Amino acid sequence: MHHLKLIALKDFPLIEPNDDLASIINKSINNNGINIESGDVVVVAQKIISKCENRYVELKNIQPSKEAIDLGKILERDPAFIQIIQNESKKIISTKKNVIIVEHNLGFININAGIDRSNILQKDDVVLLLPENPSKSARGLQSLISAYFQKDIALIVTDSMTRPYRSGVTNFALASANIPSLIDLKGDSDIYGNILQSTEIAIADELAAAAGLLMGQGSEKQPVVIIKGFDKKNYSTNDAFDLVVDEDEDLYR
Amino acid sequence: MHHLKLIALKDFPLIEPNDDLASIINKSINNNGINIESGDVVVVAQKIISKCENRYVELKNIQPSKEAIDLGKILERDPAFIQIIQNESKKIISTKKNVIIVEHNLGFININAGIDRSNILQKDDVVLLLPENPSKSARGLQSLISAYFQKDIALIVTDSMTRPYRSGVTNFALASANIPSLIDLKGDSDIYGNILQSTEIAIADELAAAAGLLMGQGSEKQPVVIIKGFDKKNYSTNDAFDLVVDEDEDLYR
Repeated sequence: MHHLKLIALKDFPLIEPNDDLASIINKSINNNGINIESGDVVVVAQKIISKCENRYVELKNIQPSKEAIDLGKILERDPAFIQIIQNESKKIISTKKNVIIVEHNLGFININAGIDRSNILQKDDVVLLLPENPSKSARGLQSLISAYFQKDIALIVTDSMTRPYRSGVTNFALASANIPSLIDLKGDSDIYGNILQSTEIAIADELAAAAGLLMGQGSEKQPVVIIKGFDKKNYSTNDAFDLVVDEDEDLYR
Repeated sequence: MHHLKLIALKDFPLIEPNDDLASIINKSINNNGINIESGDVVVVAQKIISKCENRYVELKNIQPSKEAIDLGKILERDPAFIQIIQNESKKIISTKKNVIIVEHNLGFININAGIDRSNILQKDDVVLLLPENPSKSARGLQSLISAYFQKDIALIVTDSMTRPYRSGVTNFALASANIPSLIDLKGDSDIYGNILQSTEIAIADELAAAAGLLMGQGSEKQPVVIIKGFDKKNYSTNDAFDLVVDEDEDLYR
């Protein structure tokens, strides 16, 4: 494998609740003149899935708990917003530096439970949650797009996240379908023929980051990127999404 | 920007100490029939820079301190290897889970100070350090490759690293030249015309991760990847490498 090509879908429409996202993606692929082949990876920003799944919450409909009210005072944040973060999370990990870092119900460690106020219709009192079950959404889109084009495609759902120890955000995989998220080279040889002990590569995160270069975070309106040339057949057939580490397996915790 | 193309240099030779790496890359680009254009990003795995800079260390030449000997007993590791890790590091951050996580002299948080024993000529007692000054190496290669092709290229030096909270390794930027590592969208608009408060994107890490898909970690022998189509002109002209966060700016520490 020595070539990869990434193509962002141009003129992708804004997504509304209950839109048929798979059909919109299929139509946009056709409008962009892209020839879908088996092995193509369709990378989709979580935000359009959340919108289509109507994951909007109005702050005024939220009754904050005493804990959320107290934390809101300390952090000078709207207690209803804090309540929504708590509802989406297993636990709050840190509120140092005026930032709420949580273990999300989905297992991810992220800021504000991945709830974002940019690129949603800006009413001050509306926020957008992550998709309820990104893996299920990924499988659904993957099977509908594969069926429409009669090709064996893979699909990755992404979100941009901050990272410990590094500045800025990068795009990460939230879910994947029909592609391994993690490959283990254990038992393969290195260039001198020595057997590798254990090297697991998070290819779904690398594919997500690559697509992030075209998705952008601002006004790009490019939430769907097609990656051509990635040969998953080189790797294991296990396509479980296992990029989330438990605390007792996390080398850094 | 809606297209990116990544090309790994095929048949790249094994690198020996004191090789002229820029000339080898230039020659390989020509042999691969690649037409270098201004704006192309040349992504180089740190390992071939380390080899060319002869960053090999023989364990038998290392006299471990008492601290290294004691830690070696606890971790059941060669004390000379631990001494080398300590020499390369500002401090050891954790030795839990039988893994040595350090703050490297270069500021990165990584395992074993980025010292790796795979893909080096396997004598049991030789290890390979990171390049002494990856930013200087990046600038040197960038200017020599730009001059040879008479094109304004950018260059990124990468390494694969584990991450907190996530499984597996991905490719990260260790240094960059003639391209911003981090871009700040603050003040730009989102798709609804709302002004973004602050979103910094670590584009050098996303470019590194993208290249990592072709570099691999095993027997691929593809340590150099050319990325075409990335339009850095969209972004700030500040090309300092600032992906390392100090402890007091790290949201997670």
